[in-house]
Amino acid sequence: MSVAVYCFHAAVAVGYVATGATRARDLGIPFDGVPGELNAITDVRRVEVGHTTLIEGEGKLIVGQGPVRTGVTAILPLGKDKSTTPVPAAVFSFNGNGEMTGSEWVEESGFLEGPVLLTNTHSVGVVRDAVIEWGTSKFPSTGDFSLPVVAETWDGGLNDINGFHVKKEDVFRALDDAKSGTVAEGDVGGGTGMRAFGFKAGIGTASRVVEKNGSPFCVGVLVQANMGRRENLVVAGVPVGKEITDLQPVIHHDPEREGSIIVVIATDAPLLPNQLKRMAKRAALGVARTGAVSTNSSGDLFIAFSTAAPVFTDGREHWSTLKNDDLDPFLAAAVEATEEAIINSLVAAKTMRGVNDNTFFALPHDRLRDVLGKYHRLVGKEP
Amino acid sequence: MSVAVYCFHAAVAVGYVATGATRARDLGIPFDGVPGELNAITDVRRVEVGHTTLIEGEGKLIVGQGPVRTGVTAILPLGKDKSTTPVPAAVFSFNGNGEMTGSEWVEESGFLEGPVLLTNTHSVGVVRDAVIEWGTSKFPSTGDFSLPVVAETWDGGLNDINGFHVKKEDVFRALDDAKSGTVAEGDVGGGTGMRAFGFKAGIGTASRVVEKNGSPFCVGVLVQANMGRRENLVVAGVPVGKEITDLQPVIHHDPEREGSIIVVIATDAPLLPNQLKRMAKRAALGVARTGAVSTNSSGDLFIAFSTAAPVFTDGREHWSTLKNDDLDPFLAAAVEATEEAIINSLVAAKTMRGVNDNTFFALPHDRLRDVLGKYHRLVGKEP
Amino acid sequence: MSVAVYCFHAAVAVGYVATGATRARDLGIPFDGVPGELNAITDVRRVEVGHTTLIEGEGKLIVGQGPVRTGVTAILPLGKDKSTTPVPAAVFSFNGNGEMTGSEWVEESGFLEGPVLLTNTHSVGVVRDAVIEWGTSKFPSTGDFSLPVVAETWDGGLNDINGFHVKKEDVFRALDDAKSGTVAEGDVGGGTGMRAFGFKAGIGTASRVVEKNGSPFCVGVLVQANMGRRENLVVAGVPVGKEITDLQPVIHHDPEREGSIIVVIATDAPLLPNQLKRMAKRAALGVARTGAVSTNSSGDLFIAFSTAAPVFTDGREHWSTLKNDDLDPFLAAAVEATEEAIINSLVAAKTMRGVNDNTFFALPHDRLRDVLGKYHRLVGKEP
Amino acid sequence: MSVAVYCFHAAVAVGYVATGATRARDLGIPFDGVPGELNAITDVRRVEVGHTTLIEGEGKLIVGQGPVRTGVTAILPLGKDKSTTPVPAAVFSFNGNGEMTGSEWVEESGFLEGPVLLTNTHSVGVVRDAVIEWGTSKFPSTGDFSLPVVAETWDGGLNDINGFHVKKEDVFRALDDAKSGTVAEGDVGGGTGMRAFGFKAGIGTASRVVEKNGSPFCVGVLVQANMGRRENLVVAGVPVGKEITDLQPVIHHDPEREGSIIVVIATDAPLLPNQLKRMAKRAALGVARTGAVSTNSSGDLFIAFSTAAPVFTDGREHWSTLKNDDLDPFLAAAVEATEEAIINSLVAAKTMRGVNDNTFFALPHDRLRDVLGKYHRLVGKEP
Repeated sequence: MSVAVYCFHAAVAVGYVATGATRARDLGIPFDGVPGELNAITDVRRVEVGHTTLIEGEGKLIVGQGPVRTGVTAILPLGKDKSTTPVPAAVFSFNGNGEMTGSEWVEESGFLEGPVLLTNTHSVGVVRDAVIEWGTSKFPSTGDFSLPVVAETWDGGLNDINGFHVKKEDVFRALDDAKSGTVAEGDVGGGTGMRAFGFKAGIGTASRVVEKNGSPFCVGVLVQANMGRRENLVVAGVPVGKEITDLQPVIHHDPEREGSIIVVIATDAPLLPNQLKRMAKRAALGVARTGAVSTNSSGDLFIAFSTAAPVFTDGREHWSTLKNDDLDPFLAAAVEATEEAIINSLVAAKTMRGVNDNTFFALPHDRLRDVLGKYHRLVGKEP
Repeated sequence: MSVAVYCFHAAVAVGYVATGATRARDLGIPFDGVPGELNAITDVRRVEVGHTTLIEGEGKLIVGQGPVRTGVTAILPLGKDKSTTPVPAAVFSFNGNGEMTGSEWVEESGFLEGPVLLTNTHSVGVVRDAVIEWGTSKFPSTGDFSLPVVAETWDGGLNDINGFHVKKEDVFRALDDAKSGTVAEGDVGGGTGMRAFGFKAGIGTASRVVEKNGSPFCVGVLVQANMGRRENLVVAGVPVGKEITDLQPVIHHDPEREGSIIVVIATDAPLLPNQLKRMAKRAALGVARTGAVSTNSSGDLFIAFSTAAPVFTDGREHWSTLKNDDLDPFLAAAVEATEEAIINSLVAAKTMRGVNDNTFFALPHDRLRDVLGKYHRLVGKEP
Repeated sequence: MSVAVYCFHAAVAVGYVATGATRARDLGIPFDGVPGELNAITDVRRVEVGHTTLIEGEGKLIVGQGPVRTGVTAILPLGKDKSTTPVPAAVFSFNGNGEMTGSEWVEESGFLEGPVLLTNTHSVGVVRDAVIEWGTSKFPSTGDFSLPVVAETWDGGLNDINGFHVKKEDVFRALDDAKSGTVAEGDVGGGTGMRAFGFKAGIGTASRVVEKNGSPFCVGVLVQANMGRRENLVVAGVPVGKEITDLQPVIHHDPEREGSIIVVIATDAPLLPNQLKRMAKRAALGVARTGAVSTNSSGDLFIAFSTAAPVFTDGREHWSTLKNDDLDPFLAAAVEATEEAIINSLVAAKTMRGVNDNTFFALPHDRLRDVLGKYHRLVGKEP
Repeated sequence: MSVAVYCFHAAVAVGYVATGATRARDLGIPFDGVPGELNAITDVRRVEVGHTTLIEGEGKLIVGQGPVRTGVTAILPLGKDKSTTPVPAAVFSFNGNGEMTGSEWVEESGFLEGPVLLTNTHSVGVVRDAVIEWGTSKFPSTGDFSLPVVAETWDGGLNDINGFHVKKEDVFRALDDAKSGTVAEGDVGGGTGMRAFGFKAGIGTASRVVEKNGSPFCVGVLVQANMGRRENLVVAGVPVGKEITDLQPVIHHDPEREGSIIVVIATDAPLLPNQLKRMAKRAALGVARTGAVSTNSSGDLFIAFSTAAPVFTDGREHWSTLKNDDLDPFLAAAVEATEEAIINSLVAAKTMRGVNDNTFFALPHDRLRDVLGKYHRLVGKEP
């Protein structure tokens, strides 16, 4: 029976083998905690993820023509069928040099009323209105999509960001194609043109299994990672950024800005909005474990939601929630999965050339292993 | 059977007749909404209130000797017997020129774990530690009183505030004497030396009955009012402060500072902490209806709690809460009861002479009625 | 010389005579404080306002075709020429059932880096991206328009809001047409399809002159008013909503939702971002003076900015700011101008018929005067 | 001339040699960034620190008699002589299971108006009122000490916390004895009875030199560290807590609670309150570098202030501040100095036996070095 396996296997994470993609854990990088089966946000049952990846053109930047290196990622808390069911949620801004539309209403109401979308900085608007259009056409009589949640990071180093290449159809596609199961990482969806610590990065995901009062729960994280300076990069406590100092980005003509990170945390644990806010804050600690210091120009915006929505009967919302005293393993899981998702985004991304032949290099797997080995931090597993 | 009558009678508020005290409503002042039986925070069942009032000495201020015009007010959400049961709660600072200890933990946890105490600005510390001592001696094996909630306003215009006259025994007394039923208003407890709009003020209370989905709920408010300039005073929309311009405070030697207002909102409606925060914010709108503009020196700090604590069984907290869509009458009730509680504090207070013969005059009932009559805002009822 | 007269004449507000429009003050409604020459946000020197008003079609709603009753309003803190100069700013959400993009960065940085735009709920995205396009094309080498501020209220009662009729060209027009001087009120720009207290409403503006330490300063407010229930409407303390109970909206087929209010506060007083946050919060008190209680469905989002940007020389930002102790008249001015701007939006708006012949009626001037007269609250001035 | 050398020498930190105490850096532990001369908060010129340490009795806990293991630490931003000059400041609560009195007014006003005091959880009140008494007696005609800042962590594992052993005279002593220069660490002042990661801990301090636009600035941090689980302890990226699993606390009778951390950040860089808030938030990232995940029961409260107060002339506050774009090295410095201060608190503390012979062991220096050596993370310097 397939429904039972989510967030279940722990010691052996087999799910992502199917993708053929190498992940941080495959390289022998140690992380705290126990991952779910897919080690992905989709280990939280019902969560669906869809990507629209836009890669077109090469060479000189001509605004409006390209090159295009961008996209859209959609996360649906309860899947497409239950898009209109609000889920308990909370947001937190650690450094607000970024945009997350809809955040005021999540903060006020304690609910997320629809999907979370990720894209580039200059396409937040088109994505936002497209979510409304998608919602009102799919669910004309129910739900309320008027204040959608759309977050962004800046991909102008590789992408013709002022060309506004994301169109509403790209948004519909990311939403319609969203599915459970394995999540593509690296240069996909909203993460297509992103980079972190001077390497190519993008989308990353991870999960943790938490046992509480005899029940297993799942915490899943998805990041769009676009932040950090090379010298600060830390992997599993090892100062990788100080050891790998070459393979610096090639940037022509364009001012490089430091970027941002969006963290989306999902859990099936029954938690109140104010408890989810506490989880959302822990994303900052996961970011810290990768060495980033959340610079002035970084938009470090986090959202956490629970798929355990209250049951509405007899005029009341019925909640059966964990106590604050039970939260510690969930807080730890949020920290750990955020850390691993960021490293996954670096491990998955490939070297990319974009506008004006600007180039961001992939973090080389062999050298990463060498550095971790030097610091006695490789686990035995071979990739 | 007496337990059933709380927050029940509406049209005729008979409870306060017993006290012999005149209240705003007795003077024919119109307010929106329907009050509970006592028109007091104690209409919310189980809430208990206790006052320790300290009035000693006259004449010249001698620091440490007096004159003393101060006190302590204690509000126990579930009464003395259930002092160790946390209740859902939230805080809001509209203008933070004041102190409310314990507010960080209420904000973080979503619970109030003990009583709320009100006193003067310079006695917050002794009151805070005394609550811990009271709690650990009364309930040695249960409960957690380490972060008590104590708020303050400034009574240095009438009271020897630097004499630190509140002692821990005064705190114990306010807690031990707390009871349900009628609440004394005006120059009592923490409100003893307070003034508002250039008149003598202090403690005030009021309540509202809210019907929702066929069930009656109660919203009760208690204020310690010490804010506002004469010219701004508005009663039931009428510019009373512009009409009664005499009876200004007599202040010798001492700089007059503008003050603050603490608002405590209680309800038996089952609400989540984030919903209670929304109620706490509405206190600002109630304050606005009295004409105050929340000046720089005003500490306008609000706390709201629900006596409908979740039930803990099977390792979960079980909540049956109202929806956000149901909140509107509760938000309105919080606004209305805050407004009326402030006016009640003015109506109840008597002229007081304190340090250095400084004097704050009572708001004269007959002239208040005259002014409201001039603006066609008196209801038929005679005092 | 005309540049010197802004926020200067006080006793006689002559500016708006030129427009031929009647304003609240012309009807003899009393307000606290002294208005500037135009009694408008543009009394704050350099502030420019532009409206694009979209009114097309009649009768039955056909999504995508109309009828159209919407628009865009642009507020440029330093005018078009200085659109790239950041100004000190702060935001405040009193009830977050609404959208204000860019607010995280204003909160984090303390600056507003471009214009503020107002529109309908479902057009926030197109307006946001259009501001970026406008900025990057007009000021290709300077400024940063990546996180524009766009706020909204809901006009779906009159407008084909799911038809997405606002186009980027409409945004460019509002920005390009922005000017100082008189500001059109009522059914214009973002306010075109809005209503408040069951009457037609929309854009309103007002200002106050503040003297501090011998210098005159100006506080200007512009609102997009779309909130409140009829029974709660209060004008100058008078319960107008309880006196005028007819002229209720005619709504066919469509669920009516309660709405929101956006308040934009401008000042030329030199203030720090944290001081501007204190002003932004006071908008809530101005709203309260009109009787609204900020219901669950209301997006009550406020932004305040100062045109007195710091001077950047020698690697430092040089500020010469007022002290916190000086703030009181500015806080009062923010309250007063917000109140008057809301009433102005009601007085200026005309009866409008929109989708499915839904109709919102204008607040009738003569009856408003009659009610105020009954409560002895009319000043002598004749309209 | 000695006054000029603060925060000046960098490569060789000689100041603490004088104390004879071993610090983290002496053990060869690597940290990012360049420390000031004393590697202490007092590298920020004018900052003074005073400790009152209370250690009395042994053996069985008798409430009110002891054993006593507690104290008070005072940090004076501008020294005793300028105690009445407000300095720009900001607070941040990462996990609010703790108390920091006065925080609402710091948040609202942007200023810290007096010293910062640290003590145990149950003595916050007496310390708070004592600061007011100290201030009003020392500076009767100036300053405003009505809302002092006092923060706490829990020392009930070693100290008779319900015995309320801190007296007002202890507070006066910490304030009167405060001085610049070397700062005692470990089992002193408010840190006397504290522990972290299952080892004895307490007070720790560190500093960083930041060059910006050719000028040197200083960032100093002082922590009262009382948080974290053994298994999470990380030093310089190395999982020390997983390597040293013995030397666990000996706890008799008493429930162990997890604790908290207070971080005080000082800088001489001219920054606005909202910029200081950004620095305060970075303390969370420094905490994260030590492996802590900020558990439910942790009160992680941070305050940052600048000694570069604005100059008040001609009715204005004159500020010459750094730009947001200049902040990055200051943000990094706050992270780095927080991390090092925490490790310093562990390295400085000695094994302590307290109530009921409960015992917390010192982190053994030799074994710490061994573990770091194993992970290739020791720098050459010998202790």
